Amino acid sequence: MTCSDESQFIQMNDQMVEQWGLFEAAFIGPRDGNPYVDVSLSAWLMCGDTIINTAGFFDGDGTYRIRCMPNRVGRWEYVTHSSHPELDGKQGTFECVVPSEDNHGPVGVRNQYHFAYADGTPYYPFGTTCYAWTHQGESLEVQTLQTLAEKPFNKLRMCVFPKHYPYNRNEPPLHPFERDAQGNPDFKRFNPAFFQHIEQCIGQLGALGIEADVILWHPYDRWGYANMDEDADLRYLRYLIARLAAFRNVWWSLANEYDFLLRVKPMERWHRFFAVLAAEDPYQHLRSIHNGDPDMNYDHTRPEVTHVCIQNWDVKRIHAWRASYGKPVINDELEYEGNIPMPWGNIHADELVHRCWIMAVNGGYAGHGETYVHSDDVLWWSKGGKLYGESWRGFAFLRRIIEESAGHGLTPIADVPENRIFPRVLTQWYWTRIAGGMAEDCYLIYLGEHQMAALPVWLEDDAYEIDIIDTREMTIQPGDLQPFNDDVMGHNPHIEQHKPNYYVTLPTRPYQAVRFRRL
Amino acid sequence: MTCSDESQFIQMNDQMVEQWGLFEAAFIGPRDGNPYVDVSLSAWLMCGDTIINTAGFFDGDGTYRIRCMPNRVGRWEYVTHSSHPELDGKQGTFECVVPSEDNHGPVGVRNQYHFAYADGTPYYPFGTTCYAWTHQGESLEVQTLQTLAEKPFNKLRMCVFPKHYPYNRNEPPLHPFERDAQGNPDFKRFNPAFFQHIEQCIGQLGALGIEADVILWHPYDRWGYANMDEDADLRYLRYLIARLAAFRNVWWSLANEYDFLLRVKPMERWHRFFAVLAAEDPYQHLRSIHNGDPDMNYDHTRPEVTHVCIQNWDVKRIHAWRASYGKPVINDELEYEGNIPMPWGNIHADELVHRCWIMAVNGGYAGHGETYVHSDDVLWWSKGGKLYGESWRGFAFLRRIIEESAGHGLTPIADVPENRIFPRVLTQWYWTRIAGGMAEDCYLIYLGEHQMAALPVWLEDDAYEIDIIDTREMTIQPGDLQPFNDDVMGHNPHIEQHKPNYYVTLPTRPYQAVRFRRL
Repeated sequence: MTCSDESQFIQMNDQMVEQWGLFEAAFIGPRDGNPYVDVSLSAWLMCGDTIINTAGFFDGDGTYRIRCMPNRVGRWEYVTHSSHPELDGKQGTFECVVPSEDNHGPVGVRNQYHFAYADGTPYYPFGTTCYAWTHQGESLEVQTLQTLAEKPFNKLRMCVFPKHYPYNRNEPPLHPFERDAQGNPDFKRFNPAFFQHIEQCIGQLGALGIEADVILWHPYDRWGYANMDEDADLRYLRYLIARLAAFRNVWWSLANEYDFLLRVKPMERWHRFFAVLAAEDPYQHLRSIHNGDPDMNYDHTRPEVTHVCIQNWDVKRIHAWRASYGKPVINDELEYEGNIPMPWGNIHADELVHRCWIMAVNGGYAGHGETYVHSDDVLWWSKGGKLYGESWRGFAFLRRIIEESAGHGLTPIADVPENRIFPRVLTQWYWTRIAGGMAEDCYLIYLGEHQMAALPVWLEDDAYEIDIIDTREMTIQPGDLQPFNDDVMGHNPHIEQHKPNYYVTLPTRPYQAVRFRRL
Repeated sequence: MTCSDESQFIQMNDQMVEQWGLFEAAFIGPRDGNPYVDVSLSAWLMCGDTIINTAGFFDGDGTYRIRCMPNRVGRWEYVTHSSHPELDGKQGTFECVVPSEDNHGPVGVRNQYHFAYADGTPYYPFGTTCYAWTHQGESLEVQTLQTLAEKPFNKLRMCVFPKHYPYNRNEPPLHPFERDAQGNPDFKRFNPAFFQHIEQCIGQLGALGIEADVILWHPYDRWGYANMDEDADLRYLRYLIARLAAFRNVWWSLANEYDFLLRVKPMERWHRFFAVLAAEDPYQHLRSIHNGDPDMNYDHTRPEVTHVCIQNWDVKRIHAWRASYGKPVINDELEYEGNIPMPWGNIHADELVHRCWIMAVNGGYAGHGETYVHSDDVLWWSKGGKLYGESWRGFAFLRRIIEESAGHGLTPIADVPENRIFPRVLTQWYWTRIAGGMAEDCYLIYLGEHQMAALPVWLEDDAYEIDIIDTREMTIQPGDLQPFNDDVMGHNPHIEQHKPNYYVTLPTRPYQAVRFRRL
C-alpha cells in the first residue's frame, strides 16, 4: 500500500487519467537480491504517434511501478521492458481525458524569459521556501499545507534530503536509504516509505496549485547524503526521475548552494546531473541550480539549464543576469524576512517586498522566505508551520498586479529601444535605478525609493488607463494624463528632440508604482 | 576696491595674519595692453627655512595682487618677481600669529582613507551641493548662508562657472570674462568682479567652517565656458590658483561630470589639469574629479588625485572603491532627496540617510543634496536658498555619531582580518550586506534593512559601553552584553571553532546601528 492510493494525482492502471495527470501501473516482481540495482524496468507508453519511454522503479515489498504523465488525450497503450522475465512485456491501456479546470499541465519556459503551463496559461512564479518541511512529522506538515492554502505562493522550494543546520537539529522521521544498526546508510537500497512520503507531499502541493521546486542535493548534512560518490548520486537521481517525473508540478533544482558542495561534487558532476536529467526525464521538467556565494553563479548559459535560479540580495543586477544568461531569472534568495542573526535571514518585510517588485517589474521573478526566531525553532524557511511576518501580504499584492499586467511576461523597458513612452534622453540612467517593464498593452513602472512628483511620458494619445499603485499601502488609485509643459522638467534643455507630451502627477511618496494600460 | 577689504579671510600688507589665514599684498601696475597675459607676477614668501613661491594676478583697475596662506608662525618676508619693472622686486613683511580657535588650517588626507585639518584635528566631510549659488544675486546668497549656518554641513560643492540646466535658466549677475556687445566672451580677459565675488563667497563659507569644494569645469553651459580650448583652460586654471589657493578652505574639484565633457576636453587634458595643480598650488589643496556616468570613474589611482570623488547610487560598492583606489572616498552624489522627475533627484529622505550611513560606517563619506520642485525653481542643489526636506536631520545625527566614534577614521571591519569581534565564520558575507567600521576603541555597526533580534559578538571581556542607535528616530539607548548561548544562533554547527561569547539584544526593527566603545 502506498500513498498513491490517496492522492488525486495518481491513478491506477485501467482507470481514466487526465491529460498531465499521473498514470501508474504496479507489478509484482522479485524480492531477492537488491532489486534497486539488480532489476531494470522501463516502459513505452504510446498514443497515436506519441511515445513516452520511461523508467520504472522498485517500491519495496515486491512491488515495481511505472508512471507516466500522458501529454495528449486519447487511448494509451503501454508495454514494459525488464531484465527480469516476470516484469518484461507487461501490457495495458488507459484512457487519457481532457484535464480538469485547474489542471494546466506542467510549467515550461515561454517567451524566452518567462514561463507558461503546457496549455498556454502564463505562469508567474511567486514561490516560497520550506527546505525541510517534509521531515517534520504529520502535524507540522498539515499546518504547513494549511498555511500554503491561504497564502499567495505558487511554488515551493523543498529538499529531498533532510537538513542539518541552525534551527534544524531534529532527526527526520524517515530516511532515504536503508540503514544498519549503527545508522549507516546503504546507498544502494532506497527506503520506499521515504520517497512515498515525498510524493505525497508533492501531490498535496499540486492539489493546492503549487509547483514543487525539488532540491536534489544540499550541503547541510550529518548523515552522509551530501557526500555520496558519483555512482550513488546517479542512482539516486535516476530513482527520483522514475518516481517523480510523472508529477506535473515537479521542477528539478539540482542543489541548494551547489558551490558549497564543490569539494565533494566537482563541477563536472553537476554538468553530468544536468545531462542525465535532460536525457532521461521524458517530460523535460524545468531544471535549475542554486548558488550560495553570490560570486559563484553556475554557468547558466549551458543548454541543459532551463532557467536561472540565483541567490543574490543585489536585485538591481537583474539586467545583467538577464543579459548574461538569456533565460528566465528567478532570484529565490534575496534575503528572507526575519530576525535571526544571520544576515541572509533578517531583512524587514518592506525591504523584501521592495526587492521582489524590482525583480518582477524588470521581467524577473523573486521568492519569499521567512526566518523569525521561534521558541521551538520552527522557522518557516526550513520547517514550514505558520507565517509570523508581513511580507506575504505585499507578495500577494504584487502577484495580483503582475497577473493583471504581465501578459506573456514583462520585458524591461530598457531592452526595447523602440519604445517611446520614455524617450531615451529622459531615461538613459533611469533603468538602473527605477524598474520599468512592458507587456503587450501595458507599461508597469516601479519607483521604489524614488518619489518624483511627476512622471513625464511620450504617448501616441491619451487612451490609457493609469493606475497609481501604493505598494506599501496596497492601494490602487486612478491617475490622470496631463499635457506636458516645460515646467514639469524645469525647462530641460536636453529634451528638445524627444519632448514628452504627457505627464502623470504622483504623490511625493516612495514605493509607488504606475501602470499604463491601453484602453 | 575689492571684496578683500570686507572679508575676514583677507588681511592686507603689513598687518598681522593668522597661521593659515590669508595674507595679501597689492601693487599698482600697467593697465595698457592685456595685463592678464602680458604681465607675469610672482612672489617668494619666506619665514625661516620655509619658502612659498606663489603666482600673483591682475585684479583689474591697474591693481595686481599676491596672496599667501602662511603655514608657520613668525615673521615673513616677501619679494616679487615680474616681467614688468613696476612690479618687480617689491618687498615687504608681515607677522604670522597663532591661529584663532576655529582655525585648524586646510584639510588634507590623513590615515590613507581619511582627512584631517593641518593642526591634526580630524575632519569628516559631511557636505552638500549648491552648484550655482554664487550666481543668484545677493538676497538668495544671504539666505543660502543663513541656511548653511543652521545646518550640519561642513563642505559645499560649488561651481565657478554659471550653469545652464533644468531649473537653471536665469542669467548670472556676473560673468567670468569680459564680453563684447554681442555677449561673446574674451577668454583672454577675466572679469575681476566675478572672481572677487567668488572669493567673497568662499570667505563666507570659511567663516561658517565650511570647506569650499570648488568645481572648475562642468558641461552645463550656454556661454562657451565648457568649450574653451586648452590654452584658455590653462589660463583660467592658473588664474584660479593665483586667486584662490591662499584660502585655506579651498578644495579643487576639476569637474562635475568630467566624462560628459570628454568630447571637448579629452582625457589627456584632465591629466594635465591635475599636473598643473600638483605643480603650482603652493599649498597642495585637495584635488579630485567627479564622474557622471557610474561606469566612467576617472583613474583615481593617479598620484595627483588626492581623494576619490564619485557619483554612484550603489553605495554598497564602497568596499570596491576603497580597494581599487586606496584613497579617501567621497560619494557626493548618491542621488538627492527630492521629487523632480530625474531619478538622480528624487529619492526619499530616509533612503538618502540610509545610503550615507552605509558610506560612513564603511569608512567612506557621503554628500547631501536636495531637489524638491519649487514654484520659482529655487532648488537647493543648484541655487541654494532654503531646505524643504528632512534628510539634513539624519545627516546631522550621523555626523554626531561619526564625530563621537571615528577617531582618525573608521576602517571597515572586513578589512581587519585580525579583528575578533565578529569571527569570520559569522561574517564571511556580513560585510557586503551590513556596514561595520572600527576605530581605535570603537566598533560601529549599521544594520540598515537588517533587523536581527540578537547580534552575537566575540569580545575579550565585557568592558564595553553599548549604544543601540535608531537612525530613523535619532535616539540612542543603552544596550547590554549578555553571555552567548547556542540558542542565539539556532545551535549553529558551523561556529564551533569561533563561538561568540556575548550577544546584544536588538529590537526587531530596521535602520538600527550598534556601537561598542571600550570603557
